[in-house]
Parts: sequence; C-alpha cells; structure tokens
Amino acid sequence: MRMVVLAGGIGGARFLRGLKRAAPDADITVIGNTGDDIHLFGLKVCPDLDTVMYTLGGGIDEEQGWGRADETFTVKGELAAYGVGPEWFGLGDRDFATHIVRTQMLGAGYPLSAVTEALCDRWRPGVRLLPMSDDRVETHVAVEIGGERRAVHFQEYWVKLRASVDAHAVVPVGAEQAKPAPGVLEAIAEADVVLFPPSNPVVSIGTILAVPGIREAVAEAGVPVVGLSPIVGNAPVRGMADKVLAAVGVEATAAAVARHYGSGLLDGWLVDTVDADAIAEVEAAGIRCRSVPLLMTDVDAAAAMAREALALAEEVRG
Amino acid sequence: MRMVVLAGGIGGARFLRGLKRAAPDADITVIGNTGDDIHLFGLKVCPDLDTVMYTLGGGIDEEQGWGRADETFTVKGELAAYGVGPEWFGLGDRDFATHIVRTQMLGAGYPLSAVTEALCDRWRPGVRLLPMSDDRVETHVAVEIGGERRAVHFQEYWVKLRASVDAHAVVPVGAEQAKPAPGVLEAIAEADVVLFPPSNPVVSIGTILAVPGIREAVAEAGVPVVGLSPIVGNAPVRGMADKVLAAVGVEATAAAVARHYGSGLLDGWLVDTVDADAIAEVEAAGIRCRSVPLLMTDVDAAAAMAREALALAEEVRG
Repeated sequence: MRMVVLAGGIGGARFLRGLKRAAPDADITVIGNTGDDIHLFGLKVCPDLDTVMYTLGGGIDEEQGWGRADETFTVKGELAAYGVGPEWFGLGDRDFATHIVRTQMLGAGYPLSAVTEALCDRWRPGVRLLPMSDDRVETHVAVEIGGERRAVHFQEYWVKLRASVDAHAVVPVGAEQAKPAPGVLEAIAEADVVLFPPSNPVVSIGTILAVPGIREAVAEAGVPVVGLSPIVGNAPVRGMADKVLAAVGVEATAAAVARHYGSGLLDGWLVDTVDADAIAEVEAAGIRCRSVPLLMTDVDAAAAMAREALALAEEVRG
Repeated sequence: MRMVVLAGGIGGARFLRGLKRAAPDADITVIGNTGDDIHLFGLKVCPDLDTVMYTLGGGIDEEQGWGRADETFTVKGELAAYGVGPEWFGLGDRDFATHIVRTQMLGAGYPLSAVTEALCDRWRPGVRLLPMSDDRVETHVAVEIGGERRAVHFQEYWVKLRASVDAHAVVPVGAEQAKPAPGVLEAIAEADVVLFPPSNPVVSIGTILAVPGIREAVAEAGVPVVGLSPIVGNAPVRGMADKVLAAVGVEATAAAVARHYGSGLLDGWLVDTVDADAIAEVEAAGIRCRSVPLLMTDVDAAAAMAREALALAEEVRG
C-alpha cells in the first residue's frame, strides 16, 4: 500500500507516528511543508521537516512536540551575550547541529531534498520525507501593528506574536514560482491513498497545495483523498489555526475546513465525535464524512485515527 | 604610549595579558594572525583572533589555553551523530556561537575586521584587535604521507597530525594578494614601539609579515621593534614550532630565530636565562639582546617579560 501524506509540524508528525503503527508495512511518502522555513543566525531552519524527522526518529521533545529531547541552550545564551537575536525562537544546542549540517550542505550546492534525505540517514524515520519544494517559499502574514499594516514572517507571527493580532492575509511568497521537489508528483501519481493529517489547513497543507502542480496531482490521482479535521468543537486542537483560517475567510469549524478543501480535492473527511452534527453539511458538499475521536492523546489514539482514515479511504474507493 | 603587537594564538594572548598589566595605560593595537583560520561545518573559525579575544576578555579555558571556559560539546556530538566531521577539531558549544555570529556577519557582507570589532564589543579585550587582513589567507603545510607529498591545511597539520611528520614547506596561500586590514599600516606607522610576543615565528608572526606592506611598515616605522624568543633551551616553549622552523631552514634556537627575523626588522631580542650564551651571536647579527626568564607561568611572569621587552625597547631607542 503506497500512501502519500501532506504534513505540517506537530499534528502531521504525531499522525504519522500513528499511521506507521496502524500500517507498519505501508510505503509512506511524506510531503513536508517548507513555507515556515526561516533563516536564523545565518542558518536554514526547517521546523516542519525537523518535527516530522525528530518525531518519527525518536528524538523529539515529547512534551512540547517540537525540538529535541534532553535539549540544552548554551549556544542560544552565547548568541544573546553577543546581542544577536532573535531570542523568541527557541533553538537548542542539539537542534543547532541539524541546522549547521543543513546549511553547510545547502551551501555546498545540494538541494533541500537531498539534504533532507541525508539528515534522515541518521534519523531513519521509516517514511520517505520530501520537502514540498527545493525552491524557497516563505509564508508571510499581513498584520496591523500600531495602526500600521505590514507583512511578517510566519514564524514571527506564530512564535513571537503568538497570533495575538489578526491575520489579514497569508501569502506563501515564492510559491507561484516554486516547483515540486523531485519525487513529489511521482509519489502522488503512484499512491494508493492520499491523507491530510490534522495539520493546519492554511499554513501547512494549504502551503503545500500552493506549489503549482501539487494540488492538481492530488485532485487527479484517482485514488481516495482523506483528511482529518484539525478543528474539534469549533476550536483548533493545537495552535491558533482559527487566526489564519479567518484570514482566508474560513470559519473555524470542522465542516468549513472540509468545504475549504472542497470535493474536487477531498473524498473523505473525519470529524471528531463532538462535531457529529457537521457530517450532514460535509456530505452535502460531496465529501464522505464520519465522526471518530480525533484527539491524539498518545500513539495508540493516533493509530486509531489513522485506521479510521484508511477505513474511510476504502469506503470511498468502494 | 602606542604599542603594536603582532600576535598568534596562545603565546601572543598570554603575553598581551602581561603587557596590559605591565602598561595599563598603553594604547595597544594587536595585529592578529588569520593564516590558521579554517572553515569548519560551513562556519568561519579564527582560532588566533579568538584566543586573543577570549584570553583578554576573561572567557578562555585557562588550562588548555584556547577555547572557552566551562565549555560543553553537545553540538559537536550531534554533528558526529550525523557523520559530519572533522572530529579532530574541538569546537565547543560556546565557541560555536562565536563562529555562528562571525559567519552570519561575513555572509551579510561585513569584512572580518568589522566582525572582529563587533565580537570584541562583547569581550572588551582592552586592546584594539585587528586581523592582519580582511582577505583570505590560509597557511598550508607540505607533508609526505605514505610516500605521497601533499599540502594540508595548517590546522590539519597542527591539530590532526600533531606535527608528527616533517613539514617540507609552509605556504601562506593567498598572502601575496592580500591587503593589510584597515588600520593595520596606520597603527604601525603611529606606534611608539612594536613587539613580537613569543609566538610562532613561521606560522604566526611569519604569516602576518607575509602580507605585503606589513613587514615594510614595521621595518620603516623608525621605532624600536623588540621580540621575545619562543624557543627556550633549544625547544619550543609550546607547540611544535621546531617542525615549521625546519621547513624554512631555521634551527630551533633562540639565536637562529632572531637571525631569521634579521636586524632589518628586529632591534631587540629577549632570550631566556638558559640561553644567555646566545646573546653574543644575536648581538653579532646587529640585534640588541638580553636574557631574562621567558616562561609565562602566570600573568605576573608574563607582565615581567613585557616590562623587560619595554625596557629593552627604551634601551635601543637610546
């Protein structure tokens, strides 16, 4: 069974861990969001790719869901002593090593996909992890601060501002010119099923779909495409997805997110049991819908969700 | 009193600490060797500049004489886990931060001299620390390994091979095309005295003098130029200076090093008390010579050496 999963950070990574347990023999290709990549201290940081890699490779800080376990912050403290920031982005010493290796390889001319493969040689995540693109795409968020409208990097919006101000627009800068990374379109074309984990529909999965060719490939793959709602009980399970949903004019409800993807893309949609009343609305939009528990409290819960997603895929395959 | 000191790493740094104590009101400009700079993990490492900066700024690992005090090695361990080396160069976490800041600033277009000044904003070494040049100069050592002659980076020769094989030649690659960094020639021209600490005469001070214009500026400054022998009792005080002296055909004796600099450059030379019998030979070469204790066992000893050097400078000034 060949599966393609479009993944953001924490939600995507935890779902993938469940999927691996639910389908241990599956051949899984993960297309990772790189729109939240950022250059910090001259180093290239790829938060979503790393969260997937660390989570599946056993190196993640389980509690916070990102960054490395047993982390220390000596380098960051020294950088601050030099007056060099930003301090609002928490890079630990172990994590720094990943970014140093990545930056060195990129500087030597390797594309991000090759670098990611090399990093995964160490982590052995048990999936094929591909960046959505080798080209630079950077998600910017239009905000109003002190009466002045300006665009900030997604990380500045998410981590520094903690989405405390409204997002007026979300723009994946560079996406229009970006090409899917080698292997991305092929993996989608050869997939037996495509899954959207409960990742952010705007700044994670939305950004991946914004790379020309990827949305079309998913829509035309001719295989079940099943998603899991990141909204439970009219609120994001994690993070502040409602803020960026508002920016694209989508309500923070499980049904609205399904309609946002649309039946042209999505064949099946899982909502949480508390959102069972959304089923009728989703199915009216032409998307098969089931309600199941959608809280990834542990790996077993994530595996159960993955099984439900795969069962729904078989159901729509008919 | 304006002083210019040409400095390598440990010996230069410790001498400077003594000089600051001996002449607390002096205006000291240090011209630092950058020939042993190396790119590691995509980062620009300047071992001699950092040793001076850390030593005078109170951040040095006193015992080993280089690197940071209270150092940890998390990043290095992670890089090794990625299979990324070299492992033979001991970069600690605190030290990494310096190289990250330097590399980021160089990448942003600042010359090394401006970067060094910015780093010194934190360390406040109490001297003006200038790299010999903003241009890349890299000392290579010709060696024979397994019957094959090849050139290795100075750090590979010094740190990895620990000078265990003969050096057939020492070449400061790029020196001929290099220009002295801004302020270097001006500082020499305005100096009241120029000092050569007991640094390596080939790969430290020799490399600085190899930058076109610096040797000439020192020779023509018209002020006393006084050096301290790094050779005591026919052996280097630190390191393996005899190996690189042999490569340039100079005996590892206090007198031979003085003659190597020559009376065209050097006005005064301090040898250790155990080398008192070298005085006649040095003076016969036209260089005023005195014997004093030359072991920098602590800051007081280094300060005493600095006082002797300054006294000899006044003596030759006449």
